[in-house]
Amino acid sequence: MTSSAPGPSPASGPPTLLVLDAEPLPRLGRLTGRAQIEHADESTLAERLPHADVLLVWDFTSHAVRDAWPGEGPRPRWVHTASAGVDHLMCPELTESDTVVTNARGIFDQPIGEYVAALVLAMAKDLPTTLDLQRARRWRHREGQRVAGTRACVVGSGPIGRTIARTLKALDITTALVGRVPRTGIHGPDDLDRLMARADWVISAAPLTEQTHGMFDSRRFGMMQPSARFINVGRGQLVVEEALAEALTKRWIAGAALDVFEHEPLGPDSPLWELPGLIVSPHMSGDTIGWRDELGLQFVELYERWEAGRPLLNVVDKQRGYVPGR
Amino acid sequence: MTSSAPGPSPASGPPTLLVLDAEPLPRLGRLTGRAQIEHADESTLAERLPHADVLLVWDFTSHAVRDAWPGEGPRPRWVHTASAGVDHLMCPELTESDTVVTNARGIFDQPIGEYVAALVLAMAKDLPTTLDLQRARRWRHREGQRVAGTRACVVGSGPIGRTIARTLKALDITTALVGRVPRTGIHGPDDLDRLMARADWVISAAPLTEQTHGMFDSRRFGMMQPSARFINVGRGQLVVEEALAEALTKRWIAGAALDVFEHEPLGPDSPLWELPGLIVSPHMSGDTIGWRDELGLQFVELYERWEAGRPLLNVVDKQRGYVPGR
Repeated sequence: MTSSAPGPSPASGPPTLLVLDAEPLPRLGRLTGRAQIEHADESTLAERLPHADVLLVWDFTSHAVRDAWPGEGPRPRWVHTASAGVDHLMCPELTESDTVVTNARGIFDQPIGEYVAALVLAMAKDLPTTLDLQRARRWRHREGQRVAGTRACVVGSGPIGRTIARTLKALDITTALVGRVPRTGIHGPDDLDRLMARADWVISAAPLTEQTHGMFDSRRFGMMQPSARFINVGRGQLVVEEALAEALTKRWIAGAALDVFEHEPLGPDSPLWELPGLIVSPHMSGDTIGWRDELGLQFVELYERWEAGRPLLNVVDKQRGYVPGR
Repeated sequence: MTSSAPGPSPASGPPTLLVLDAEPLPRLGRLTGRAQIEHADESTLAERLPHADVLLVWDFTSHAVRDAWPGEGPRPRWVHTASAGVDHLMCPELTESDTVVTNARGIFDQPIGEYVAALVLAMAKDLPTTLDLQRARRWRHREGQRVAGTRACVVGSGPIGRTIARTLKALDITTALVGRVPRTGIHGPDDLDRLMARADWVISAAPLTEQTHGMFDSRRFGMMQPSARFINVGRGQLVVEEALAEALTKRWIAGAALDVFEHEPLGPDSPLWELPGLIVSPHMSGDTIGWRDELGLQFVELYERWEAGRPLLNVVDKQRGYVPGR
């Protein structure tokens, strides 16, 4: 999706680019002289926001935008987030404003597709037990599972969900994709329960919206097969964590892997670390070596479009909370 | 490859099928009345062998056939092993005899292809560290590697090697296959050093023969990239284990995974359990739920061909030590 967001005001000097960041930014050097780059943290964001033309949300773990976004008066005309999800910044004032929001669509697709394949194969081949036995210096032969011919249900039909589905299909896994609206090759929400009930692998890769919040609950874990596994690489709030804990403890399902959590980072006293059959990873599924460079370059390229008055790419539908698909 | 092995002698009763086994056999019930089934273990094999028409080597961990095979006199006309490799049973007397040897070609291909993909992805995504950190209840974000666009070199161009290559290619890994003889799509041994030197993943899936014994040695580990990983799902004796230990300890290579070993089972005092960057698994790459059933059914179907005087399938070239490929 493209947008005819207004470019910089021709009369003034270089536009002010405000960066919400927790760490050094790669690739922005290319904008030297073409943007007046300022930095803010959570405590200074509200004060700086009215003076900025563009906001780059580099620290995608922060919810500061939601709290600091000005209800009226001057504000950035464009907000870009270096993440696929936009749930951390959307608020009614931003949704209703004429500010354009763009995201990092495309950067994370293939890494997350590979990460999900890694989890599926690791669980099928019982790799966690193999590593436990290695630590104990114990040789104990076991039988793995064949993944070819098993069934997956991928929830979320954006580029990430579609790439996950393509990767699983390449392993000969029969894969169904579920989105908000049924279209060719994609099931609608009405099919979800039926597809989940027959799936060996249920993959959560949906954006976090009002409709998807808590969608993986006791009822849905209860209808999964006892041999099935659940994987969440979307957002933690898609899952009712207590319900998943119960499903694992009571062996309603055979296993799960969470890369995202309701509260991140997961604290050392969380019971999730030791749930039977659960693999916990630190929100890393999309992050491969060089990803910060790719995110920086993607923003610079968008900035150059905006600077030239050309339509932006990756424009988020602010009502829906994601970039609408083709 | 097929063979015109002589079927049962028409004059006598049901042929004697001798089974070298360590555990109960599935699927052989179908042969009731059509074969006189006897069992032997390592201590009784030499005594029983001259009385058998057919030998089924079900216990593929045993080297007893090699020791017990009669140099002259009556012997089985057909030996089938429920394994892909035949190294555990071949001896000069068997090679020179007119006894036909068949193997379990086809059963292990897809499971081993998936298993190698599981190891490649687990190493790329640093899953062993993730599981270590989970045990310590520590949240530590790291960057994984993208496997798409990396290079693999698969050594062994039989059905297992070819299936591994196909599976890795499906993950967009650029994959070269190396066999004993160059042919379309398969490199010959002359290309091996060059391909290994540029590979991110070196996969050992060759049969164990005089030519392949110890082929992965110090020289070859020394020419691999420091970021590369080595995986062995072939036979333990393909690898000089001390050389791999040195390569890992001195960080000549970034990691390895062994599913097969010079001595199996690996004893609790083996230094391999704790080598840095090494994943040890108990010879399970080809073994998925139902595999014993598949092996039993495969033998029964071969037996029915033999019984009917039709040519056998999966006939091993005894000089080369494997079933020659198409």
